[in-house]
Amino acid sequence: MFGFFKKGNGGKKEENFCVESDLAKGVGIKMPSFHESVNYMYKQVKEAGLSNVADRFEAMEKVRCKFCKEGVSCQLCSMGPCRITPQTPRGVCGIDAHGIVMRNLLIKANMGLAAYTYHCREAALTLLETARGNTVYEIKDPAKIDALAQVLGVDPNLPLDKKAEAVAEGVLKSLSQNDTSVFVEKLAPESRKEVFRKLGIMPKGPMNELVDSVTRSMTNIDGDYVTLALAALRNGVASAFGALVPLEMIQDALYGTPSPHQCTVDFGVLDPDYVNILPNGHEPFVGMALVKLAQDEKFQQMAREAGAKGIRIVGSIETGQEMMARLECGDVFPGLTSNWISIEYFLSTGAVDAFVMDMNCSLANLKEYADKYRFKLIAVSNIIGVPGSIRLEYKPGNEAKVAEEIIKLAIENFKERKEVQKADVSRFKQNAIVGFSAEAIVEALGGTLDPLLEVIKSGDIKGVVALVNCTSLGNGPQDSMTVQIAKELIKRDILVIGAGCGNAGLQKAGLETLEAVDKYAGPRLASVCKALGIPPVLSFGTCTDTGRIIMTVVAIANALRVDPSQLPVAVTAPEYMEQKAVIDGFSAVAMGLYTHVSPVPPVTGSDKVVKLLTEEVEALTGGKIAVGDDPVQAADGIEEHIMKKRELLGI
Amino acid sequence: MFGFFKKGNGGKKEENFCVESDLAKGVGIKMPSFHESVNYMYKQVKEAGLSNVADRFEAMEKVRCKFCKEGVSCQLCSMGPCRITPQTPRGVCGIDAHGIVMRNLLIKANMGLAAYTYHCREAALTLLETARGNTVYEIKDPAKIDALAQVLGVDPNLPLDKKAEAVAEGVLKSLSQNDTSVFVEKLAPESRKEVFRKLGIMPKGPMNELVDSVTRSMTNIDGDYVTLALAALRNGVASAFGALVPLEMIQDALYGTPSPHQCTVDFGVLDPDYVNILPNGHEPFVGMALVKLAQDEKFQQMAREAGAKGIRIVGSIETGQEMMARLECGDVFPGLTSNWISIEYFLSTGAVDAFVMDMNCSLANLKEYADKYRFKLIAVSNIIGVPGSIRLEYKPGNEAKVAEEIIKLAIENFKERKEVQKADVSRFKQNAIVGFSAEAIVEALGGTLDPLLEVIKSGDIKGVVALVNCTSLGNGPQDSMTVQIAKELIKRDILVIGAGCGNAGLQKAGLETLEAVDKYAGPRLASVCKALGIPPVLSFGTCTDTGRIIMTVVAIANALRVDPSQLPVAVTAPEYMEQKAVIDGFSAVAMGLYTHVSPVPPVTGSDKVVKLLTEEVEALTGGKIAVGDDPVQAADGIEEHIMKKRELLGI
Repeated sequence: MFGFFKKGNGGKKEENFCVESDLAKGVGIKMPSFHESVNYMYKQVKEAGLSNVADRFEAMEKVRCKFCKEGVSCQLCSMGPCRITPQTPRGVCGIDAHGIVMRNLLIKANMGLAAYTYHCREAALTLLETARGNTVYEIKDPAKIDALAQVLGVDPNLPLDKKAEAVAEGVLKSLSQNDTSVFVEKLAPESRKEVFRKLGIMPKGPMNELVDSVTRSMTNIDGDYVTLALAALRNGVASAFGALVPLEMIQDALYGTPSPHQCTVDFGVLDPDYVNILPNGHEPFVGMALVKLAQDEKFQQMAREAGAKGIRIVGSIETGQEMMARLECGDVFPGLTSNWISIEYFLSTGAVDAFVMDMNCSLANLKEYADKYRFKLIAVSNIIGVPGSIRLEYKPGNEAKVAEEIIKLAIENFKERKEVQKADVSRFKQNAIVGFSAEAIVEALGGTLDPLLEVIKSGDIKGVVALVNCTSLGNGPQDSMTVQIAKELIKRDILVIGAGCGNAGLQKAGLETLEAVDKYAGPRLASVCKALGIPPVLSFGTCTDTGRIIMTVVAIANALRVDPSQLPVAVTAPEYMEQKAVIDGFSAVAMGLYTHVSPVPPVTGSDKVVKLLTEEVEALTGGKIAVGDDPVQAADGIEEHIMKKRELLGI
Repeated sequence: MFGFFKKGNGGKKEENFCVESDLAKGVGIKMPSFHESVNYMYKQVKEAGLSNVADRFEAMEKVRCKFCKEGVSCQLCSMGPCRITPQTPRGVCGIDAHGIVMRNLLIKANMGLAAYTYHCREAALTLLETARGNTVYEIKDPAKIDALAQVLGVDPNLPLDKKAEAVAEGVLKSLSQNDTSVFVEKLAPESRKEVFRKLGIMPKGPMNELVDSVTRSMTNIDGDYVTLALAALRNGVASAFGALVPLEMIQDALYGTPSPHQCTVDFGVLDPDYVNILPNGHEPFVGMALVKLAQDEKFQQMAREAGAKGIRIVGSIETGQEMMARLECGDVFPGLTSNWISIEYFLSTGAVDAFVMDMNCSLANLKEYADKYRFKLIAVSNIIGVPGSIRLEYKPGNEAKVAEEIIKLAIENFKERKEVQKADVSRFKQNAIVGFSAEAIVEALGGTLDPLLEVIKSGDIKGVVALVNCTSLGNGPQDSMTVQIAKELIKRDILVIGAGCGNAGLQKAGLETLEAVDKYAGPRLASVCKALGIPPVLSFGTCTDTGRIIMTVVAIANALRVDPSQLPVAVTAPEYMEQKAVIDGFSAVAMGLYTHVSPVPPVTGSDKVVKLLTEEVEALTGGKIAVGDDPVQAADGIEEHIMKKRELLGI
């Protein structure tokens, strides 16, 4: 029996949460994923005797440390390691359980802030070189340059290239601002800024907040869970406004602002007869260059000469989401495989030639897979360290060279890959409508938010929930909790916005289709969806789109002339996994939003931290954390919150 | 029996490492420190029933986690916590023991880099406001402004204030450089830069390295212990050249470059009849303002009216070292109490009115002490979080206001403190010669390094060892290993340069005196010391002075026209405690230096990481880590290394 079932209630409420494939049925074991494709390939991987995430999780269940799980273990200094027990209520340095727990959480939040800042900086550097004419990219959405120019005080009348250059320089400068971040100053609602100022969480530029916050996390600096929690909230504000918002605006400027269109997801997007190159991670830079080059007949011809039907750039996890939100799906870009837990499983299909890793979410043990299934591991970011990788590091301006080398390596690889046994995953295909954004919604509504506000006021849409997420086995099979909570919410006439790795789970489960309206949505939401021609779950992209979501919330709040905390909205991260999710959680709470998180973060070793994050913080920011691994109960909590907010608004 | 004696060999070699006070003798227990003053006060604190670092260490010894100790535990994501066991050779994400161990170490190195960057930024902001005439400080050493101007390309002919302003702005800009750090480019020897380039560890500005490195430390990014180790080395270069060097130059510019003079250390500097204000931490800004104000007869009079003999600003740990290196010791600044492990013990003397905490090294549990011994806990840095603190945050320009408020609070406190029982610590006083620096050495040598080079060449000084350190109970009583290894080295005619918290241990042990020459130094070193009138252990200040030490090493190497790795020099951190020590270790190894570290860092869970850091890295940078908790064996290793280098140089 799999450990996934011992943990929480992630799977209990959904009769088909564990779709047993034919092969799986034969063996009679339970499966690690909500998705049939993953379970099918899991069986293959297991038979091949490869170490994989599901088996590792199962094995680890037997050796978990209770102290680490509760957050009361500290390994920072040479006086430790310490752990809080009845005999040792304080670490050697004098810090108590509450300080250790909150500091451990802040250390994770710091990483999330760093990652988004890294991504923003890379985007700004890419824009800078593009503006200077040094890249293969172009400014696809000048409106986003104008929007950034307005925030940064750049002359709107400059020619586009000069304006884009000044904007890129301004964003880079803003990252290391020593005074209040210009993005918070200009884009946060006045009511929120008051809250930030009152709490002392009005942030500087994200790099300076990072310096402060990483320093604060050291031994013998901050042992007070309250100031540590405030630092995490300040990081959350810095991350959302100071890093994510400019980053997404820049990516929209460069690659186009997403607009709704059909695409295909799941392992069936991998056709072994093609040279398949999978950009994986979170940054679309190399992936977009790959698509550009793959559209060149010269390279397609080269692939055909090697015996392939052609070259395909196939979306993988969040880089794939970034691309899918903006690209027409077709022969060069057929769609998206899946999210991070699926990586080992789709890499064993025998259909992959190059796994191109940017930034984050590439597993450290992929060499075993690359050797067996004959594909190339290619690191295009300096920070990626996957043993066995070829390094072709992206720097703005070298993307065509990098992409060309990757294509050539992949074509060479195709010849070797012929001998590898292929899995037939062609049946695993699911349509999804992707590419929503604030702008797309306004356009769908006829140029104004008013129709949305009307249906919210009328109660046809009870409220809106942003489901921003990773995917985790920590509370049950992959994507099971994610899919179930989304279904619970739309059933209750609550519109869901999906982003992050969990978004791929929603896509694969068929929730981002028009068919899902009748199948899963409550009657009033269904009528709105039909009127607008939208699914009940809207694809808002990646975890990086947290800023986009927050700005959408701000736009709605501004339109209603209320503070975001007063809106009938909430956030859920039903399968949070890593550190970006932690900082996103603090961003949401700082914005005054009710934020459901599962599995329970490692904070249970401190009753005070639990109380602060799940209760007391509400009096400070209006937001709070809610935990719980049961999708129905979690949805109950969210609905209750939404109804309370509706009542307070008198709607 | 105390746990300190079960651990390592830290105490075995020194007959009097455990000085039992009369009181202690009566009880017949062993003591936690090399220093009588600490042991005496430990006894008092224990009798008072207060939680203190020694007792907490003893208690924690019984519940330590073997996995955390070996570095093979990971708590980063919701798929964990994980730990490496025979049944779980990889974490759930796929990372192996080597990756986990090195990533855990990198996380600590990141914190050290952040802390030094934080301090550098605060120093630069202080210089900026001083140049603009907005602080009580002035430019005491314009030569350091000129030196910085040269690195930064600032016009040397500008008037001093304009030049200082441009320098401050230049340093701030350099911290967030996206290209190679100007300080590395301009100040690292050409031979080192070649090594850095070859290894890909030529750093950008420290803030951008921090962004990269904290991101790299997340789940699913870098699982390769080699690339993780290279990142730590790159951080080390960024920290030493990009943060520490400008930071120290700025502090020299503002408060004067240290020059040798007599001062007093140990608990006896606390006279309970005075209003005693203890600036504690690492940043001298508020401390220097306090001294300035305390020199004002108005405030002294105010103190006398409250019944005190006057006001004293007493140095505490590294802030105290920074001040002591530059101030004449006298009635307003009588000297330094001790290092961080002593904090609880000197705060229980009943002689303290205000404990003024900047930046780092303030214990989280001090409220209990403040309540019992009636002193004020005052946080002057935003990142300090000690429950029970009054917050008076320093921002350049408000230092006079902050200092005045502190003085007034302390005087008020003095009235309440009358009732508190005082410990008589007046007998614990030790003289020390403090305030060495590269400039001071050159001046002592008659304006040139040549005499030093000559005595090194002749073998009168076999070599030079920088002892840069915290203080830890992890390998025995406080400062025991530190003092013993220093004695072992000078006995072997090896000159020791002391810095960091360990430096206070050396001062209190009487090693930074002229008397120590005959008592402890080998005959040839003794003759050099006598000729120059210097102690065998030179006080180079704080852990922050690592950059100062590295620049001294560079100066010697340049003078000899060799690479630093060829010099008969080494580094020892015999009681490393926290994360600044970790980054200092990587700085030293990147510079090509043999670097002894004790206690053993949490890396033993990976044979590969151990081999890389203690052996293989030598072929890459010329430096390496040596571990070992026995002072004689550690000195043997250092001497062997020095003799090998002498042989290779043909001297």
